[in-house]
Amino acid sequence: MSSIAHELAKKQKEISVSEFFEKNKQILGFDSLTRALITSVKEPVDNSLDACEDAGVLPELLVRVEKIDEKEYRVTVEDNGPGIVKKQVPNVFARLLYGSRFHTRAQRRGQQGIGVSAVVMYGQLTTGKAARVRSKISDEEVAYECDLILDTKKNRPDVIKEDFVIWDRPHGTSFQINVKGKYIGGKQSIFEYLKGVAIVNPHAKITFIPPEGNAVVFERASDIVPPPTKEIKPHPEGVELGELLSMAKYTESNKMTSFLNTEFSRISYRVARDICELAGVPPEQRPDKMRLEQAGAILEAIKKVKIMSPDTDCLSPIGETLIRKGLKNVLGQLKADFYAPPITREPKVYAGNPFVVEVGIVYGGGLNREEQVQILRFANRVPLMYQQGACAITQAVEAVDWRRYGLEQRGGQGIPFGPAIVLVHVASTKIPFTSESKEAIANIPEIKEEIELALKACARRLKTHLNKAEKKSKTRVKFEIVQDIIPMIAQKAAKIVGKPVPKLAGTITKIMNVVWIDDEVKFEKNRHHISVKIYNYTPKSQNFHLHMLLPYDKVDQKTLKMQPIEVREANKVTWDVKRLSSTDILELNFDLHGVPQEQYDQNELYVSGIDSASVIGAEVLPGDWDLEHLRITEEGPAEEPEEGEEGEIDYDEGVEVVKDEE
Amino acid sequence: MSSIAHELAKKQKEISVSEFFEKNKQILGFDSLTRALITSVKEPVDNSLDACEDAGVLPELLVRVEKIDEKEYRVTVEDNGPGIVKKQVPNVFARLLYGSRFHTRAQRRGQQGIGVSAVVMYGQLTTGKAARVRSKISDEEVAYECDLILDTKKNRPDVIKEDFVIWDRPHGTSFQINVKGKYIGGKQSIFEYLKGVAIVNPHAKITFIPPEGNAVVFERASDIVPPPTKEIKPHPEGVELGELLSMAKYTESNKMTSFLNTEFSRISYRVARDICELAGVPPEQRPDKMRLEQAGAILEAIKKVKIMSPDTDCLSPIGETLIRKGLKNVLGQLKADFYAPPITREPKVYAGNPFVVEVGIVYGGGLNREEQVQILRFANRVPLMYQQGACAITQAVEAVDWRRYGLEQRGGQGIPFGPAIVLVHVASTKIPFTSESKEAIANIPEIKEEIELALKACARRLKTHLNKAEKKSKTRVKFEIVQDIIPMIAQKAAKIVGKPVPKLAGTITKIMNVVWIDDEVKFEKNRHHISVKIYNYTPKSQNFHLHMLLPYDKVDQKTLKMQPIEVREANKVTWDVKRLSSTDILELNFDLHGVPQEQYDQNELYVSGIDSASVIGAEVLPGDWDLEHLRITEEGPAEEPEEGEEGEIDYDEGVEVVKDEE
Repeated sequence: MSSIAHELAKKQKEISVSEFFEKNKQILGFDSLTRALITSVKEPVDNSLDACEDAGVLPELLVRVEKIDEKEYRVTVEDNGPGIVKKQVPNVFARLLYGSRFHTRAQRRGQQGIGVSAVVMYGQLTTGKAARVRSKISDEEVAYECDLILDTKKNRPDVIKEDFVIWDRPHGTSFQINVKGKYIGGKQSIFEYLKGVAIVNPHAKITFIPPEGNAVVFERASDIVPPPTKEIKPHPEGVELGELLSMAKYTESNKMTSFLNTEFSRISYRVARDICELAGVPPEQRPDKMRLEQAGAILEAIKKVKIMSPDTDCLSPIGETLIRKGLKNVLGQLKADFYAPPITREPKVYAGNPFVVEVGIVYGGGLNREEQVQILRFANRVPLMYQQGACAITQAVEAVDWRRYGLEQRGGQGIPFGPAIVLVHVASTKIPFTSESKEAIANIPEIKEEIELALKACARRLKTHLNKAEKKSKTRVKFEIVQDIIPMIAQKAAKIVGKPVPKLAGTITKIMNVVWIDDEVKFEKNRHHISVKIYNYTPKSQNFHLHMLLPYDKVDQKTLKMQPIEVREANKVTWDVKRLSSTDILELNFDLHGVPQEQYDQNELYVSGIDSASVIGAEVLPGDWDLEHLRITEEGPAEEPEEGEEGEIDYDEGVEVVKDEE
Repeated sequence: MSSIAHELAKKQKEISVSEFFEKNKQILGFDSLTRALITSVKEPVDNSLDACEDAGVLPELLVRVEKIDEKEYRVTVEDNGPGIVKKQVPNVFARLLYGSRFHTRAQRRGQQGIGVSAVVMYGQLTTGKAARVRSKISDEEVAYECDLILDTKKNRPDVIKEDFVIWDRPHGTSFQINVKGKYIGGKQSIFEYLKGVAIVNPHAKITFIPPEGNAVVFERASDIVPPPTKEIKPHPEGVELGELLSMAKYTESNKMTSFLNTEFSRISYRVARDICELAGVPPEQRPDKMRLEQAGAILEAIKKVKIMSPDTDCLSPIGETLIRKGLKNVLGQLKADFYAPPITREPKVYAGNPFVVEVGIVYGGGLNREEQVQILRFANRVPLMYQQGACAITQAVEAVDWRRYGLEQRGGQGIPFGPAIVLVHVASTKIPFTSESKEAIANIPEIKEEIELALKACARRLKTHLNKAEKKSKTRVKFEIVQDIIPMIAQKAAKIVGKPVPKLAGTITKIMNVVWIDDEVKFEKNRHHISVKIYNYTPKSQNFHLHMLLPYDKVDQKTLKMQPIEVREANKVTWDVKRLSSTDILELNFDLHGVPQEQYDQNELYVSGIDSASVIGAEVLPGDWDLEHLRITEEGPAEEPEEGEEGEIDYDEGVEVVKDEE
């Protein structure tokens, strides 16, 4: 027995981190040939985008994938970033756990110092070939170029060839690697990955040359580099006891108060004193003398003292407008019915790291009703392609009871079925990935909860839309039935009893008893054509206000025949609908010009001065419109008009009133 | 721009592996408080079981979880393994990427040299407290005990206290740690994890003392330590080009042939020479002089040369009997209808690593029909509790079209719904986990495919059972209806026309026209009572063979009245059913003794010499039974007996023929 213990002891040895990952390459995203090729593109692309943003440069990337033979591909990624100084090139590209972003709390794509070196390691493991890196910084005449391999026994770079070369770029980096892989199209492909990158990085221009040769260019949709995100110190909420002790041990501060103030964000000197007092720790005590129970007391005190939420300028969410734009960009060809207004939530904190969640939903149109809802996942502006099932985003989607929001879902859990796409973006100074391959966000309770809340908020907007659409379609069906059946009954009845066919308009309106607003937006030749039809299917004349959210300065006045009675804050527009007789239709048509298509795709319509229950197609005016001074004159219940009688209406200049043809 | 490059260069630095994991503790399985506590139990338990098996000791584990305060728990895991020599204790427990199993190709629970040191790191991070380890090897008088922390900046152990203590164990190891966590019951709990461990390690005795105090003992169900699994060299199938080059560089062999023979399994000298010849590489060449294109040619040659499958004694599958036993053990209280005979597939290879897949399915009974099928995942005899969605096992389950096998599944993909539990075990010399937390198997195509094949094979058995059950129940219903209705019709009709009630047995058999075999297994007082009833509901006398798979040496001959005409291979038993008259019933009853209950719970019945379409309750005899010499005498179609007439039957000694009561 003891000999076994000694035997086992002999086998105990150190494992170099690169040996570890060489044998566990699946952890780094190299589990299958298709995924390996995508990872080999993804890692250098992430690095290039980070480098450009660090330098405030609008990214311009070239991604080329060449087929060498049945299973070998050459991947090249070239950027216009600031370049990398010669001395750092080998370490950056061929050494695991080496990088500039690990010790920084800031929203970056790369965090680990593993990615691109892992690609180099995978390339040499599978093809035996070295990586080639070329880099030029702007004050040098020539570029530095070298061939690199990673010595996995030591986890150190091995430069096997180096030189200075002429490069016509002012600055930038090019990375080239041969890898064993498989190139495919479809859902989980390099093309889809780059499309995803383009959605959430509208400021980047990406040219992709696939093995088959025809270059695809994802054009820049915005000329603004996202504002630089600041580095922050850890927020005291969520700091661990051992972490606090370790920070206190290594701090340069001599007093507890200055330690707390210097090493954490949102702790002022005053707050630091409050914390010490509550914890019963002398403010003057040396932090490196802090005892275990004192550290515990300080953590308790931090929970009780009011500390501001973390700075948000360390985060760079995509924003509601760009999410909408992104979704339309990719999904334009689907002709979806509805793009739910996206949600960008307030930043929250987990373990001292601020994070923010954004959600957008697309519904209907060309999407398949019989399939599971598609989930588009993004973390720090990087599309997540694999390990969907392991991701907190997916788990949050599965935890929501989508039946409440109009989607089908057995038992109220799991990925729902229906014609919808859900986009979720999580941005943080530290994304807690489930593994080094960075394809799934770990199930951190704070993050999952935020995603759920964002999903529910966005789903409520979807539900409102679906309710409205359902109401509208029911009314339409009812109307069509009434229009068809009643005259037939009348004719037959008249024939049987030998009397003339009675006039029916009044009867029909009695049955319908609703004001129906039917609106449409069409985009043609750079103009939005907007049409709003108001049908008075009530038995009496109606008076109310119609309100619309519009970029009013973009309305082509030549096309607007019915003038509004008020325009507030440049976009809150109100029309006065007056004495619209029973069975009459009022049409309001005009054009917008100079508005990008994706910025206006739905009319937002509201009514006031009328019982909203009898209006279909517009919502009741929300309280924040603030139209109190514009009160509708109460005229008392309008008298019921005789059958066939036509009510009167004020003809505003050019308003077209179409009579209902009986 | 250049200043930015220099600025960024300054930030580049090395990251120690422990710093990396301290900041990414979610990767190691510490993403939530409940999971963190389970991981803190799981890692030392895995180590203890491995150590016991290395030493050939029947494991006896004590697992204690104590509540310290609201969020702090103390975990203790104690084993009767061989112990760890003093010098190695600090490195084994407080240094990441250090261990005995990483460089070994053998089926072990631990592979990475991370697990338990990660628990120590998590404990100190969250509670500030050190781990306490005690270990004794059998030739020492006293145990060594020390308090350990992990210096995360350097990734080295820090022994803060050590001593020798008296311990009444002859040998073993105890590990104690304080961690921040949350203790829960239910599906993903320590109790469930230990139950899972007990299922797949029936040779281990585990005592669990939960915070609430009442010890639970999982008793040993087998006294046999699984046979030690051998370490192997990589199998040449699936070796990577770069790996081959690297192996050739570091080998001690001087010639290509001896290199191939020594460093790989299943390459004899002869095969090595064939490979060299096919590849056009001189057999005498020094391996370290191998060029890239030569390495490529050798890999191509390896594909063409016939190489034996890997040795299987490096693997320790659970086995079909123990899987069944395990499932019954845990799921006994569910009173499931059916335990599909488990499948243990032949070993296969991915990337040079042999692996084997095992599947078992439980169906019906107390399981919920409205819920998703439950998946029990195991890897190298360790239950996988988290990240189900990321696991190749789950993905394989989702990829199978379960509708073909009688389960409900929308669109033929996703986790199916129905009253079933699916157990999958993957054993390999190297499990490719998706992350260091070892909770999900990566989607390696070879592995996923094998799991799918195993699932389908087991599902076919389920389907056969469901078909049989359905047929049987339909026949029963039909029979009951016929039995009830026909006599009533006859009576009424007879009364109306004023004639006597006709004899009906012949009519009923004409309607049924089937031989119905109804069988049962009952276990009572350590005996299996087996009963097979054969109803001839056809209008003619029948002759056929009835076959059964049985441990014939366990049949109590005193209870067996009808002797079989043949027993092949000790378990293929055949009876001759001769001249069984229309409407007669033949009963075949006997007992088995000395067979454990779980080893026999269903009769496998086959027939030959009769049109299988007219038999319900037994399948047609499979081709591999090989009964050609026992051909049934063709007697031509039996004449239809008169109504009420009784056919003849050969009375074998003691055969009981019960007349159908008309």
